Amino acid sequence: MSSITPPLARRLDGLQSSAIRDLLKLTARGDVISLAGGLPDQQLMPRDRIALAAEAALLDHSKLQYTESAGWGPLREVLSARESARLGRSVPVDEVFVTHGSQQALSLLSEVLLDPGALVVIEDPAYVGALQVFRAAGARIVAVPIDAEGMRIDALTELLDRGERPALVHTVSNFHNPRGVTMSPDRRRGLAELADRYGFWVIEDDPYGELWFDRPSPEPIASHSPNVIRLSSVSKTLAPTLRVGWLVAPNAVCRGVELLKQGADLCGSALTQQIAADLLADTDWLATHVDRLRRVYGERARALVGVLRDRFGDRVVSTDASGGMFVWVDFTDGTDTTELLPRAIEHGVAYVPGSAFAVATAYRNSMRMCFTTSESATLFEAVDRLARAVGE
Amino acid sequence: MSSITPPLARRLDGLQSSAIRDLLKLTARGDVISLAGGLPDQQLMPRDRIALAAEAALLDHSKLQYTESAGWGPLREVLSARESARLGRSVPVDEVFVTHGSQQALSLLSEVLLDPGALVVIEDPAYVGALQVFRAAGARIVAVPIDAEGMRIDALTELLDRGERPALVHTVSNFHNPRGVTMSPDRRRGLAELADRYGFWVIEDDPYGELWFDRPSPEPIASHSPNVIRLSSVSKTLAPTLRVGWLVAPNAVCRGVELLKQGADLCGSALTQQIAADLLADTDWLATHVDRLRRVYGERARALVGVLRDRFGDRVVSTDASGGMFVWVDFTDGTDTTELLPRAIEHGVAYVPGSAFAVATAYRNSMRMCFTTSESATLFEAVDRLARAVGE
Repeated sequence: MSSITPPLARRLDGLQSSAIRDLLKLTARGDVISLAGGLPDQQLMPRDRIALAAEAALLDHSKLQYTESAGWGPLREVLSARESARLGRSVPVDEVFVTHGSQQALSLLSEVLLDPGALVVIEDPAYVGALQVFRAAGARIVAVPIDAEGMRIDALTELLDRGERPALVHTVSNFHNPRGVTMSPDRRRGLAELADRYGFWVIEDDPYGELWFDRPSPEPIASHSPNVIRLSSVSKTLAPTLRVGWLVAPNAVCRGVELLKQGADLCGSALTQQIAADLLADTDWLATHVDRLRRVYGERARALVGVLRDRFGDRVVSTDASGGMFVWVDFTDGTDTTELLPRAIEHGVAYVPGSAFAVATAYRNSMRMCFTTSESATLFEAVDRLARAVGE
Repeated sequence: MSSITPPLARRLDGLQSSAIRDLLKLTARGDVISLAGGLPDQQLMPRDRIALAAEAALLDHSKLQYTESAGWGPLREVLSARESARLGRSVPVDEVFVTHGSQQALSLLSEVLLDPGALVVIEDPAYVGALQVFRAAGARIVAVPIDAEGMRIDALTELLDRGERPALVHTVSNFHNPRGVTMSPDRRRGLAELADRYGFWVIEDDPYGELWFDRPSPEPIASHSPNVIRLSSVSKTLAPTLRVGWLVAPNAVCRGVELLKQGADLCGSALTQQIAADLLADTDWLATHVDRLRRVYGERARALVGVLRDRFGDRVVSTDASGGMFVWVDFTDGTDTTELLPRAIEHGVAYVPGSAFAVATAYRNSMRMCFTTSESATLFEAVDRLARAVGE
């Protein structure tokens, strides 16, 4: 074969496969308890309800055809009603755009909103999927650290005071992946004010907001400013297989995204979008279903946090895991989590080292653990194995 | 709102919505017979068989989860077997990559294979979705005309003789959209030889190859050279709602596409991919189903071509429509199809003017008609209306 052309070769050099995905391949061995993944528990997904909705959707041939690029109409109606309730204002249907999971929303928005070299502010540690998209767009990326109240708005303000002018600020506002924390109401208002004052876009990436364990997530940042584009998805509450995510943005942004969506993949699936619409509109059923997720995931989260404190005491500080899918653990005794990983896998437990999410800080003493796919007894065993690996 | 940022404003100026889509909106009126669309007939889609496959797939929770970026394993196995038979060589699974319709394959390949400013050769008239993708990639686009035997390889040779060095040549090899013709076996070999000699990629875009009416399509161009990337889809034979397309390419290209797919939308739907795998593997059922499509579409195509000759005689030259979904009509009497369109719609018939597909040639006397979604009697009525509109 004559030609692996230069652009292809450069792209293979330049893009890195997600460290998480590579790890997942390593830990597919049956004897390893993997807390490395970022998957919801498929056993908790509403298989029967989805089967019922699929059967109903397929009574009508129109669900087999191409659908609108912006999404199947009835789904956009349901989402517009939900988002109106969530944001405390009327969200018109033409400000709701359905994407192939919220990752596609990120990807299309970065094409619509960013010129190469544009400044993008992201959180450190970062959601790897966002980092990948913004890097591919040729953005200049600056990281702002996170603490227990979410993105450090004081650090963002310093950046702006120094004359930096971001085109876009990306935040995972609820139960951050990987950092586990939720942005406080004060910081939400602060970020919205900065967006209004300096005219940058905020992408409020919110796949986990529904998965709170003790009390509902704070008002979205998007309720405080029209410069905030909200992203969400049914992947964590219903099922990833539906590939239904969405964005809420001003009409002009949605129309820009629509043109790009036509080139990217024409449209989504009327079938899976109708299934999502059916389940989201069945509000009593949905409330019961999501309550169950909150209860089961909440138990697992508390089990993991509890056993970490039990086995490691002062040697670790972990997030409280009040929602979402992840616990973030900082070792205070200098344990290097990247060096530890091969030993941990030998002992039959896997996690993602903090370095995989690092932007400006190295996070060499940190790790992300996912509690959604393991029952409490398994989480106890996982931490026991981890303790043995650290002890060696 | 403070900020419709400059990149967004430029993108809204620079990208044009597909003329076909805008037209479709105009002709949604019930009293207009639209031959403007490019849709398969949803009444012929195998609704019951899909419902059965959906039910079977949903017995297993794993179909609800995220799946591999390259596609659900069993579907890639089925595709690898089919493509091996089609190409006359063993196609390994890692050379098959499943995309969200073949439009996504085009889009991801253009990112992997093209640098801004790279030369892309396309056919004139062009498949609009390809034109859109290559323009968005910042490619320099040069058109090569089509005649009754497909892409004019002599014109491509002249281009190469003048020193032009394309990175990529795109062709719709079977039942071209919009031109209706199929590339002859000699030209296929000729194009493959040029690709080998000059080291460019060929994208052989083949959504319609299965829809032949009289005799099977010729051997794919991809059977003659490893520099040919083959694209296909189940949208025209099973149902667009499955959003299952694929590409067959060397492993290095597939791995480049995989990295980009992770950023673009993580992965496809295990559910719809399993449905596609189920139906494609059910070879006896599939043969009967596709035979029926061939028979029904073939009747409609012959009806349209016949009535065009009947009503217009020497004033039009149309393709034979030996497969696919479209008839291309050239008026020999100077009729301007763009000027005619509003009058035609007044008379209750719609088509797409040739100008919508134009790259270097204007095609002002041409039109594309889609015969798949209308029964013969409706096609007769459509052409009667067109004749009245032309006659005025």
